[in-house]
Amino acid sequence: MLTNIRIVLVQTYHPGNIGASARAMKTMGLTDLVLVSPRCFPDSEASRLAAGAEDVVDGARVVQTLEEAVSDCVQVVGASARLRSLPLPHFDEPEAMAQELVAHAATDPVALVFGRERFGLTNDEIRCCSHQVSIPANPDYGILNLSQAVQVLAYETFKAWRQRPDSQYRQPRPAEERQPTREQLTHFHEHLGRVMQASGFLTQPHARTEVQLQALFARARPSRKEISLLRGLLRSLEESVKDD
Amino acid sequence: MLTNIRIVLVQTYHPGNIGASARAMKTMGLTDLVLVSPRCFPDSEASRLAAGAEDVVDGARVVQTLEEAVSDCVQVVGASARLRSLPLPHFDEPEAMAQELVAHAATDPVALVFGRERFGLTNDEIRCCSHQVSIPANPDYGILNLSQAVQVLAYETFKAWRQRPDSQYRQPRPAEERQPTREQLTHFHEHLGRVMQASGFLTQPHARTEVQLQALFARARPSRKEISLLRGLLRSLEESVKDD
Repeated sequence: MLTNIRIVLVQTYHPGNIGASARAMKTMGLTDLVLVSPRCFPDSEASRLAAGAEDVVDGARVVQTLEEAVSDCVQVVGASARLRSLPLPHFDEPEAMAQELVAHAATDPVALVFGRERFGLTNDEIRCCSHQVSIPANPDYGILNLSQAVQVLAYETFKAWRQRPDSQYRQPRPAEERQPTREQLTHFHEHLGRVMQASGFLTQPHARTEVQLQALFARARPSRKEISLLRGLLRSLEESVKDD
Repeated sequence: MLTNIRIVLVQTYHPGNIGASARAMKTMGLTDLVLVSPRCFPDSEASRLAAGAEDVVDGARVVQTLEEAVSDCVQVVGASARLRSLPLPHFDEPEAMAQELVAHAATDPVALVFGRERFGLTNDEIRCCSHQVSIPANPDYGILNLSQAVQVLAYETFKAWRQRPDSQYRQPRPAEERQPTREQLTHFHEHLGRVMQASGFLTQPHARTEVQLQALFARARPSRKEISLLRGLLRSLEESVKDD
């Protein structure tokens, strides 16, 4: 599915942006890069900024026109910072765009197209697109660097893919800590209550304070190890209080 | 609200990353930048990569320790590419992190902390944090460039803010095209039906074909101007068909 998603960069001026875009793509599982008439390519700046994504740069296809780059695609989304007067269907939210793009990519090639750093896409190039998307930004300063725009839209694309049941993406998680039983928690709270009384903080069982503390620890969800640690602390406090 | 959200960069190695991060911040409405012991700052690379966000770079506060940078904050989220063994509350999804961060920022300063390019944050620095967040990425290549990570988390932060009813963010939209009335649409479809028959495509009214075309145009939602254009085309076709 992600292999069906193509990133197309049109007439990129700075080769560094090509490298940084390749890196952005690869961190989000995308590898199909096509360059339309790049100004300077291949270039050492592209390789340098690519960091560990040089394979994406090296595998990039170079073509002369946007038409060649997307002719086999069933959906072509032009990323544009500026609203156009052409009434192409427009996604206000990259999230919505990504969900549709990934859905189509299940069966056919699709493309996300980015224009020149300064000038974006021409009207003719917009005509090669089926949709437009913009990244909602600061109204006073809303033009993202090209590779940053690639990163954001690639991020939303990867997110849309992850959230599909058929992607089978597994969130890496550290090994779960074991949780204490209700009985262990009760013993802990009783112990805490005894120490609060022994220290003179409470002169008698005080339901409200104890309930508040139970709520606090319920939110904290201490693991068994942590309860153990706290009970060790409570025992030391009990000893010190007795010695006074 | 957005002014309460601080971006903290710890011991950044490449000044270019400071500039690119400042630009990423500003596109997403964030301006409070704090640098903890940057290796090279001020630096022309930082200004160059900042593009139109030099004001954010120039206004950056420089401190010696992370503690100084965040002491007044009520929530401090450490951005970490690597899962830590320290059981700090962890956000799997930047989206969820951003919603909480923005909610707290309504009343108090909060911070998003980014570590060194190669080494991230130290365990002592993680201890200055209340939460961790990671950006879900390609398991085979998941380390985003520092300024790209800033862009993605700033983007989610701005999105969380926009989506709050109290932000009063207005999506810029081109002027709405007027929609045709049901009657105008009916006349269009009748006209289309006549042309299909006149051309020999249909030998008689064909409910299924007509219903399919009505569904297509219902999805396309032609504006009044577009219906007008189509009817002009249909009239020309009618004329040509008659002349045959």
